[in-house]
Amino acid sequence: MSPVDPADLTARLIRCPSVTPEEGGALTLLEEVLTDAGFACTRVDRGGTANLFARWGDRGAARNFGFNGHTDVVPVGDRAEWTADPFGAEERDGHLWGRGAVDMKSGVAAFAAAACDFVRDTPPDGAVILAITGDEEGDATDGTTALLDWMAAQGERMDACLVGEPTCPETFGEMMKIGRRGSLNAHVTVTGVQGHSAYPHRARNPLPAMARLMDRLASETLDEGTDHFDPSTLAVVTIDTGNPATNVIPRQTRATINIRFNDRHTGASLTDWLREECDRVAGEFDVTVDLAVKVSGEAFLTPPGPLSDLVAAAVEAETGLRPVLSTSGGTSDARFVRVHCPVVEFGLVGRGMHGVDEKVEIAQIHALKAVYARVLRSFFA
Amino acid sequence: MSPVDPADLTARLIRCPSVTPEEGGALTLLEEVLTDAGFACTRVDRGGTANLFARWGDRGAARNFGFNGHTDVVPVGDRAEWTADPFGAEERDGHLWGRGAVDMKSGVAAFAAAACDFVRDTPPDGAVILAITGDEEGDATDGTTALLDWMAAQGERMDACLVGEPTCPETFGEMMKIGRRGSLNAHVTVTGVQGHSAYPHRARNPLPAMARLMDRLASETLDEGTDHFDPSTLAVVTIDTGNPATNVIPRQTRATINIRFNDRHTGASLTDWLREECDRVAGEFDVTVDLAVKVSGEAFLTPPGPLSDLVAAAVEAETGLRPVLSTSGGTSDARFVRVHCPVVEFGLVGRGMHGVDEKVEIAQIHALKAVYARVLRSFFA
Repeated sequence: MSPVDPADLTARLIRCPSVTPEEGGALTLLEEVLTDAGFACTRVDRGGTANLFARWGDRGAARNFGFNGHTDVVPVGDRAEWTADPFGAEERDGHLWGRGAVDMKSGVAAFAAAACDFVRDTPPDGAVILAITGDEEGDATDGTTALLDWMAAQGERMDACLVGEPTCPETFGEMMKIGRRGSLNAHVTVTGVQGHSAYPHRARNPLPAMARLMDRLASETLDEGTDHFDPSTLAVVTIDTGNPATNVIPRQTRATINIRFNDRHTGASLTDWLREECDRVAGEFDVTVDLAVKVSGEAFLTPPGPLSDLVAAAVEAETGLRPVLSTSGGTSDARFVRVHCPVVEFGLVGRGMHGVDEKVEIAQIHALKAVYARVLRSFFA
Repeated sequence: MSPVDPADLTARLIRCPSVTPEEGGALTLLEEVLTDAGFACTRVDRGGTANLFARWGDRGAARNFGFNGHTDVVPVGDRAEWTADPFGAEERDGHLWGRGAVDMKSGVAAFAAAACDFVRDTPPDGAVILAITGDEEGDATDGTTALLDWMAAQGERMDACLVGEPTCPETFGEMMKIGRRGSLNAHVTVTGVQGHSAYPHRARNPLPAMARLMDRLASETLDEGTDHFDPSTLAVVTIDTGNPATNVIPRQTRATINIRFNDRHTGASLTDWLREECDRVAGEFDVTVDLAVKVSGEAFLTPPGPLSDLVAAAVEAETGLRPVLSTSGGTSDARFVRVHCPVVEFGLVGRGMHGVDEKVEIAQIHALKAVYARVLRSFFA
C-alpha cells in the first residue's frame, strides 16, 4: 500500500460541511480511513455532538500514544467575502482553500496519515489512539470531555497526548505549547434606584459604583508572570447601560471583564477576589453588585520534560527550528486532556484561522505529517 | 355648564402615549377642551415638535396672565417593573397611575380646568394664555422657545407667567420656585485601539480610562450652595460600549453626564473644567477623549416680588402652608419664559416623577386646580 496523502485527506475533510455542531460526514470519512488501516473505531456521540475514538493495538498495551483534535469548524462568516468555495477545497497557488484548512482539518489529516503509515510499516509494541471531537469550536460540553470520560470508563488509557492545533505564529516549527493560560468571563451588574438627574440624592446611581469598580479592577496588577507564563491580564470588554434619557438616573448597568490567568491563580481564587471587590464597592455606594463568573478553562502546564523534549526534537529534525515552549494564546481542548495525561501541542502556522479565505499551504501539511511520523517513531523507539 | 374635572382630564392625558417627541394625541385633546371653553387655539408645530398656543380674551389686552407647561413625558423605563399600565391611567388607592401623572399632565389639566371655569364664570378684563409644549423632556429646541418666538412675532404678550411643574418635595403647598439651576449635558467619547482580550498589550482599551474619568467626575464636590441655590450636582447617566464579544477589546466607549449648576458656575466654566479632566485622563491612558457639551440652560433667578407674593398667598389660602421660595431641582421651561416676563413655578409633590409606577393623588389634582383658580382671581382682581 502507498502512503496516505495528508493533503488529499485534508481536502476531503474540507468538503464535509462540519460547522459546529454538524458532523457533516467528516468523522465518518475519518472512521473509514482509519478502519481500513486496522484501527478499531467507535463513535462516541453525546447530546447531538459526534465524537470518534480510534485505537490501533491492544487496549491496555504497555505504551499508548494519543492524539486529540477536532473536525468541526467555525461558521463561514460573510460568504460574499470569500474568493473560494468555503467547502470546496480548491487547490490554488500551492494552497488548499476552505473553512478548517488551518483549524484544524489539516492537523487531523496529517496525524491520521502519519499513524496509518506508521502502524502498517513499523507496527509498534503498543497502541496509537486518536480521540477526535466534533465540538471544539462550540460549548465543548459533549466533545473532548465526554470522549475522555467514556475512555476512562472503558479503561482506555493514554501515556501521553499530542494536540494538533495550530501553534506557530509566523513560521512553521517555531513554537509549540506546553500549557495554556486560563480564561474566565465575569459579568457584573450594579443595581441602584432609578430617579431624576436633578435630584441625585433621591436616587442611587449605579454608574459611579461601576466606574470605581472597573477602575480598580483594571488598575490591578494580577502578577508579574511566572517561569513559563506571561503575566495574567484583565480586560474590561464592555460597560453598557442603555439609558437614552439625560434627565434620568438609571437603575442598572452591566459590565463584562475577561481575565486570562496563569498558574498563580485559579478560577476560584479570582472569583473570590472579584467578589470581594464587588462587595467593597457595593458597601461604599449603597448599591447591589451581582457577579456571575464563567471559567472557561483553568491555567495548566505540562512542565518541560520527556514529552516536550521528544516533540521538540522531532520538530527540529524536520524543520531545522527548535520550537519555543510557549503557553501563550487562547484555550484549546488540551485543557481537558491534561487531567488524564501529559499533553503538548504542535501544529501549523495559525494565521488566517476563523477568517475569510482560510487556506493552508500544501507543503506544510506534508511537513506536519513528517513531524508527527517522527514523533510516533521516537515515542515507540 | 358644570366645572371641568381636572382628574378626569389628567386621566385622559395619561392615556395619550406622548413620550417625547410623540404628540400622542395629548395636545389635540387639550385643544378640544380649550376650544370648547372659548379659547382661540393655534398649533405651533416646529421640526417634529407639536406645541399649542391658546388665548381667551383679546390679543394685547390690558392684563395678560400666562401659563406654561408640557404634555410630553419621559420613557417608561423597565416596563416589567411597573405594576400598572404606564399609559392606562388606572385609578387605585386614591391615585391615578401612569407616566406623566406627576410630571406634568396633572399640572396642565389643573390649570386648563381652572382657566375654563374662570373665564366662563367670571370673565376677566384681560387675557388668559396657555403656552403648552410637546418637547420639554427632550432637547426642547422646538418647544417652548419656538412657541415664545412665535408669540413675540405675533405680538402676543404675557405680563406674568406661571409654570406648572411639580415644585413640592413632600407636602403639597410647601414650596414654589423662583429660579432654577442651570443644566448641561456632556457627551464623552473615549477611543483607543481594538484588539484581542488575550493580548491587551497590543490594544489600547478605552474602558479603564472611561471608568477613571467617570469616577473622578462623580466624586467631585462642585460647590456647597449659595443664598438662593442648593449645591450643584453631577450625574453620570449612561456609559455604553455595545461590545458583544468577550474576546475583543473594543475601540470606543461613550458616556453622558448631566450637571445641574447654581449661579457659582456657568456653562462655560464647567465646560472648561470637564475639558481639563478629559485631557488629563487622555494623557494618563494614551487614548483620545472627545467632549461635546450642550448647555440646556444657565442658572437664573426671578427675585422675590409681586408675582411670587401673589402665588404664595394663593397657595397659603388653599393649603394653609406658606411656600418656601426655592430654586432647587431640575431645569424647566421657565428658563426660556424668564427672558420674556416674570415667571414663577408652582405645582404638585414631585416624588416619583420619571420613576416606575409614577402616580398622582387625585385629591391633590383638585387642590392644585383650586390654587390655580385663586391665582387667576387674584391676578385679575
